[in-house]
Amino acid sequence: MGPPSDRAFVTDFPVLTDADVYSKFDYERVVAAIRDAFTERAAGTLEAPPRWHVDAGEGNLVFTAGAATGPTNAAGFRVYETHGTGDDHTELVAVFDAATGAFEGLVAGHAIGGLRTGGIGGVAIDALARSDADTLGVLGTGFQARAQVGAACAARAFDAVTVYSPTRESRESFAETLDTEIEPPVRAVDDPEPVVSEADALVCATNSEDPVFDPGWLTPGTHVTTIGPRFQDAHELPLEVVDRADAIATDSLPQVDAYDRPYIASGADRERMVELAAVLENPDCGRQHVDDITLFCSVGLAGTEVVLGKRFLERFA
Amino acid sequence: MGPPSDRAFVTDFPVLTDADVYSKFDYERVVAAIRDAFTERAAGTLEAPPRWHVDAGEGNLVFTAGAATGPTNAAGFRVYETHGTGDDHTELVAVFDAATGAFEGLVAGHAIGGLRTGGIGGVAIDALARSDADTLGVLGTGFQARAQVGAACAARAFDAVTVYSPTRESRESFAETLDTEIEPPVRAVDDPEPVVSEADALVCATNSEDPVFDPGWLTPGTHVTTIGPRFQDAHELPLEVVDRADAIATDSLPQVDAYDRPYIASGADRERMVELAAVLENPDCGRQHVDDITLFCSVGLAGTEVVLGKRFLERFA
Repeated sequence: MGPPSDRAFVTDFPVLTDADVYSKFDYERVVAAIRDAFTERAAGTLEAPPRWHVDAGEGNLVFTAGAATGPTNAAGFRVYETHGTGDDHTELVAVFDAATGAFEGLVAGHAIGGLRTGGIGGVAIDALARSDADTLGVLGTGFQARAQVGAACAARAFDAVTVYSPTRESRESFAETLDTEIEPPVRAVDDPEPVVSEADALVCATNSEDPVFDPGWLTPGTHVTTIGPRFQDAHELPLEVVDRADAIATDSLPQVDAYDRPYIASGADRERMVELAAVLENPDCGRQHVDDITLFCSVGLAGTEVVLGKRFLERFA
Repeated sequence: MGPPSDRAFVTDFPVLTDADVYSKFDYERVVAAIRDAFTERAAGTLEAPPRWHVDAGEGNLVFTAGAATGPTNAAGFRVYETHGTGDDHTELVAVFDAATGAFEGLVAGHAIGGLRTGGIGGVAIDALARSDADTLGVLGTGFQARAQVGAACAARAFDAVTVYSPTRESRESFAETLDTEIEPPVRAVDDPEPVVSEADALVCATNSEDPVFDPGWLTPGTHVTTIGPRFQDAHELPLEVVDRADAIATDSLPQVDAYDRPYIASGADRERMVELAAVLENPDCGRQHVDDITLFCSVGLAGTEVVLGKRFLERFA
């Protein structure tokens, strides 16, 4: 990363890389860190404004900043750019002591952003899926899908994971890799319908701007999480699922309301949407019946990266 | 900085410290970098929104982000916290390629923030002081005052520098240190009046919320820069100077308008305020007569830290 340099840069503060993160990493700890952040959200001690962005040439710089001022005592931010990808690109998560302002270090790379989104998904599935949920279905095979499955299986004991994506090699290689990382067997399927209809919890983590399944395939009692495009004019989920859902939760209502295009849950659906933190405090805000369809719209609660970054930095202290 | 650690952190991207910055540093280059930023501002290629801040426990995190998308090709931000000071505190400047988004590195520490404010002051004095300005006067002896004098003397050939602050040791040690760093002799004076009345260019760089000189001391033709408190209810400058000034410039009008308390130049004075970039393009916006009083209100143009940070990183590439 960065321009070629004749010297190594040795810092007097911790800077973790993706390699560091993966070397000290398990999904149980990721989910625990994110749960801490939601506990602070419920207690009113998580400062989590919507993202801020700046025009920065051919793309934007996007800042998600926040602070957990309760027991976690972490302030900071994550910054990423929207220009493109490559080996010389990185995201940064910076962590400060929320009480004193002391700088605690950086986590550079792409791992932490996806892991915290995975952790949020794990907490959401644990809060919203039926207590007897056995089968986890996944549509999508990218890095986000992988972190969602890893964290979901750390948060809940599933018996089986099934995955579909249109490209055979992608879904097979995804299943093969995941199989070594998590407890339940992971099976690639060449048809999305059984993945959706047999799932007790379904994660959509695609880049598709058109619905990736038929709403008729969904069976009563299923929990659905959407990570990919989630706007009225671009959505991986059939819009019918939003209307049909008995409970709709998100990690951050301020972020939902801050988008500059119409969100997938609008009007009455937006009105009945609740924060995941509220569901954790009062489960009646979420699933009420075994046959309920529950929906989680993941938007990226600010402060969650900072809490997770602090936990990784602590492991290197 | 950061928690004690058993290991050194070696990064795969450049991270410069205050020691690095000072080892490769001269005020001519600082002023040249800041001049590049203002040239881009005048050309319409400097993206420079007002600062953004987030409540972060006992203080705020403050972000100044921007991009120079012309010849400089730099995007990025500076972040600092308002909790307090100490060895374990730092500011961060992050630099990205504005065209590709590639990450180019970090400058950590406090040096770069003050140097860019000094550089802005140097460009302002060069643009607004009389062409025959000989004497530079300074009220204040902190780090900001030092960078202002260093940059002013790199931007213009002054014959003499005089400094006043209420504490004898502070002003004498300031004069002694500066004397070794800049060309013209630096003299500490035990009375602010001659510093003000004999100055062709006067820099106020104090923390005072009450005026630090009598407006009657100011003589026609003087340029005045204010770096310290600059609000209607807290100002190091006598308010009369704002009214009396024939031209008022600032580095960023959007930042002036973004403060959540009334700025020192309000009403008609705010209306006639111009950007320093406009003065550089069209000198008629600034000083028109040798007897004019000119005023520069330094607020911190976004993007300037990023341009300066890029120049420092280039020297280590």
